[in-house]
Amino acid sequence: MNIKTMKQFMARLFMVAAVVMLSACTMMRATGDMGVVIERATGSVSIIETTNRSILGRVENLGDLSHATVVYSRDQRYAYVFGRDGGLTKIDILNRSIAKRIIQSGNSIGGAISQDGRLIAVSNYKPGGVRVFDAASLELIADIPATYGKDNQLSKVVGLVDVPGQQFVFSLYDAGEIWVADFSESKQPKLKKFKKIGRQPYDALITSEGRYYIAGLFGEDGLALLDMWNLENGVKRIMNDYGRGKEKLPVYKMPHLEGWAMTGDYAFIPAVGRHEVLVINRKDWQEVKRIPVHGQPVFVMASPDHHKVWVNFAFPDNDTLQIIDTATLKIEKQLKPGKAVLHMEFTPKGEEVWVSVRDENRVRVYNTRTYEEVAQLEMKKPSGIFLTQRAHRIGL
Amino acid sequence: MNIKTMKQFMARLFMVAAVVMLSACTMMRATGDMGVVIERATGSVSIIETTNRSILGRVENLGDLSHATVVYSRDQRYAYVFGRDGGLTKIDILNRSIAKRIIQSGNSIGGAISQDGRLIAVSNYKPGGVRVFDAASLELIADIPATYGKDNQLSKVVGLVDVPGQQFVFSLYDAGEIWVADFSESKQPKLKKFKKIGRQPYDALITSEGRYYIAGLFGEDGLALLDMWNLENGVKRIMNDYGRGKEKLPVYKMPHLEGWAMTGDYAFIPAVGRHEVLVINRKDWQEVKRIPVHGQPVFVMASPDHHKVWVNFAFPDNDTLQIIDTATLKIEKQLKPGKAVLHMEFTPKGEEVWVSVRDENRVRVYNTRTYEEVAQLEMKKPSGIFLTQRAHRIGL
Repeated sequence: MNIKTMKQFMARLFMVAAVVMLSACTMMRATGDMGVVIERATGSVSIIETTNRSILGRVENLGDLSHATVVYSRDQRYAYVFGRDGGLTKIDILNRSIAKRIIQSGNSIGGAISQDGRLIAVSNYKPGGVRVFDAASLELIADIPATYGKDNQLSKVVGLVDVPGQQFVFSLYDAGEIWVADFSESKQPKLKKFKKIGRQPYDALITSEGRYYIAGLFGEDGLALLDMWNLENGVKRIMNDYGRGKEKLPVYKMPHLEGWAMTGDYAFIPAVGRHEVLVINRKDWQEVKRIPVHGQPVFVMASPDHHKVWVNFAFPDNDTLQIIDTATLKIEKQLKPGKAVLHMEFTPKGEEVWVSVRDENRVRVYNTRTYEEVAQLEMKKPSGIFLTQRAHRIGL
Repeated sequence: MNIKTMKQFMARLFMVAAVVMLSACTMMRATGDMGVVIERATGSVSIIETTNRSILGRVENLGDLSHATVVYSRDQRYAYVFGRDGGLTKIDILNRSIAKRIIQSGNSIGGAISQDGRLIAVSNYKPGGVRVFDAASLELIADIPATYGKDNQLSKVVGLVDVPGQQFVFSLYDAGEIWVADFSESKQPKLKKFKKIGRQPYDALITSEGRYYIAGLFGEDGLALLDMWNLENGVKRIMNDYGRGKEKLPVYKMPHLEGWAMTGDYAFIPAVGRHEVLVINRKDWQEVKRIPVHGQPVFVMASPDHHKVWVNFAFPDNDTLQIIDTATLKIEKQLKPGKAVLHMEFTPKGEEVWVSVRDENRVRVYNTRTYEEVAQLEMKKPSGIFLTQRAHRIGL
């Protein structure tokens, strides 16, 4: 090698090094304003940031993402995506790449991350049960088949959430049971089973401090309530009129329980099959009021300041959002974001809200004070929106 | 240059490039599990992470950090440190460096960041008032002198917090007033002034949803309450027995109001000058119970699950922590972390708590379920501990 070729070689090498360093620098960013948006039709997610409201990148090859949900690692670097096809994918949102992906079952419905961030739990339809993985390696740690009855049938599992004290709680759809799995002392959980809690629990929520677990019932009216501070009291039935009712109205979409809005005094709850949002007193679970709304409500979400509740609707009314004032209990605003408004997510301090409009292939961002649209982002059939603040919240 | 020297030169250059790239790589990390700890005596902060419980680095030359507080940028990359000497320092916690530093007044007491993250407000003793800066550049945007009385005196300002709707609220110690500064429509705020709210407000808090602003009074008993949803109702007086009392007990340290613990039903409040924690019904602000404790309480902090309240104490009882069960209202545990327990900060989902023990030059980390110490970190006279989750919280 003579001096001239060596000089050329050096120059090229330095170019390469510079590009690598530069790309490392663009990756160096904080994660507090980041998030992912599920793109159902293409099996991808868009990685976004809410400060300048932009798309940072896209990660593909995530399988069937219908009804997909996401939880975050405690440092916010990894988004765990739970796919309908049993896929569990750990996405590095800084590197915008798949860190690890496994197919952990044949058909799954949701997941949760433990209080300490070290365990990932997935609830499965098939085979029915919960599987728990190491959050770092995605290696299987515990398998909890949802067996019930004399023949040890396996039940579909729904409504899986994390609870303080390194516990998970979930409901058995076919068995009508609620189970608590306690991982505080060992990687093999202690199980507590609550039986005959009601027919066909189809979804559940946990209140924001992690105390009250509430399961909705598909097979009968009413809700099942478990007080995590007083497990010895067992499951209690509340709101006996809540459900599909005796008339068995046509229900286009069972409302998500995670969409319940809890403010200081009230719970705002989507009525099942009716064009109403129910206002419930949180003290005694008695109905305070029914607010007539535009269609069958799906998500009923409180803004971080608890002053407004945003509501979206089932087909064929799913082009609309209504906003309820929690002080007056009246609708104060209606928006028409477009066809198939599927999900909403507030920025952590609530100044803006991100709204996915599937059939318009875009996410719209609104100022929550003025209701002005402040940004539009093109995405492929967007559905769920998940911001990294969820890393810091119990039950999300 | 011959080939041999060029080879040596190249080798050296590549070593340098490798080191630079490597350090860029170590910087690439998420920010959700990070935080800073104030080291008062040395004018420095330690940058920490809570997943492996380690110190990542230290940033120095921050001036007088007695009573220093911190807020975070909405992306969590920058910690804004408010020093007692009027210094406002923007620390890049990923690069572990000072991004910008200004001396914005002669003597300051605290700060806040706006709902949208674009404004930093600082409350000053001297000259008395609030100054508002651009969060990116730290350029002055608005100056709000706290003028009062016929001669336009300037009042010390305390109890500054951010409130939804791009507002700041603060109290004028000498004037006995509460002001609301609304930046929603312009960089020059609309001011609303509430006068004669009580003598010498010395500190304040805002409830977690950003609705109720409560100022403590040094010059008389009782507290001043402002409902941000109903400003037209003005300031109301609550808890008329709360304060130093008629006997004017010796008070070693006025308790911080930010340390009030709010659970679903109750507020847990440090009594002034008495060895008691007061339990108050949040509905009507009436006293439910007084819990006798080890000393004069300073911080009374609820764990994220609202199941426990941790209490530290003023000198000479400041080597102790007591933990109250919020269901039984009884003390369930006592710890002796060492001399001068100054502050506590829970991890976001509450599995651990970080405790600064100034005179032992260390921070101790406890498991909140077992009360076992899980880590010790050596620091220089640590005081305030601030985790990045605060970026996502109203009023912090």
